[in-house]
Amino acid sequence: MSNNSESLFKQISLGVYVIGVSDGNRQNAFTAAWVMQVSFNPPLLAISINPQSTSYQLLQAGGICSVNVLGQHQAALAEHFGQSAVDKMAGHQWQSAQTGAPILSESLAYFDCAVSHYSEAGDHIIAICKVVTAAKLNEGQPLLYKSTGDLDGSSQLYQ
Amino acid sequence: MSNNSESLFKQISLGVYVIGVSDGNRQNAFTAAWVMQVSFNPPLLAISINPQSTSYQLLQAGGICSVNVLGQHQAALAEHFGQSAVDKMAGHQWQSAQTGAPILSESLAYFDCAVSHYSEAGDHIIAICKVVTAAKLNEGQPLLYKSTGDLDGSSQLYQ
Repeated sequence: MSNNSESLFKQISLGVYVIGVSDGNRQNAFTAAWVMQVSFNPPLLAISINPQSTSYQLLQAGGICSVNVLGQHQAALAEHFGQSAVDKMAGHQWQSAQTGAPILSESLAYFDCAVSHYSEAGDHIIAICKVVTAAKLNEGQPLLYKSTGDLDGSSQLYQ
Repeated sequence: MSNNSESLFKQISLGVYVIGVSDGNRQNAFTAAWVMQVSFNPPLLAISINPQSTSYQLLQAGGICSVNVLGQHQAALAEHFGQSAVDKMAGHQWQSAQTGAPILSESLAYFDCAVSHYSEAGDHIIAICKVVTAAKLNEGQPLLYKSTGDLDGSSQLYQ
């Protein structure tokens, strides 16, 4: 691999999302960029997740999640939900659709999902999720991951 | 699912790529948008592919591929490599790096990859690929999938 892996991988265009997870009355939300559609019929999204996170445990236990699209004006939300704070969901408005996963009301759009299966992927795990319902919530253009700079500290994660 | 699935799924930001595949002296290249990074260490890319394509057979047989990033000025290339023409590689310059997969010289950057494993994904298959080498080739900003309109006819693919 090259010496400038981070700038090379930023050539892969990605959005920025808040992923909501819940298992019964335990819930959490975290920022992710590694999200894409992988099937038309059924409509499936793939989300690549750090398996050492608390949210991954909740996802595995509950089997549901929401993918909430952040807009260009919401980089601060990406940073907020990228933290490991215990109560980061407080102070934001959440709603629920079909699966019961927490949906971030201020996002541009949401995809309410049920996990289909998982696939190993190096230091991450890919959750392949069926989109049960989806809707637009607010007007705006999606935030692009590359415009967030090194907000997530990912420049440290390439060997 | 909603009645306007296509416009909803366009809220998921994606780039546009030419994927080069080869098996011995047979080779092909096709346009794809469902590409993302899924691991830092090892660096892995996931590519969701139509399993009924000729290119998928070549990918399975050869076990290698290149991911070539298209720039904003290259929508015509995306359309060209989205066709099923037999000789669509002719008239373009190709080079090879470590794996031997064909690399599109006019792209912004390439990732030369070896397939690690596959995962089922509805009407597609996800190839999880280890990035063996990668480099920047030309200056430019990546082409975004949503700016290509319905170039790929995907509006017909949602049920």
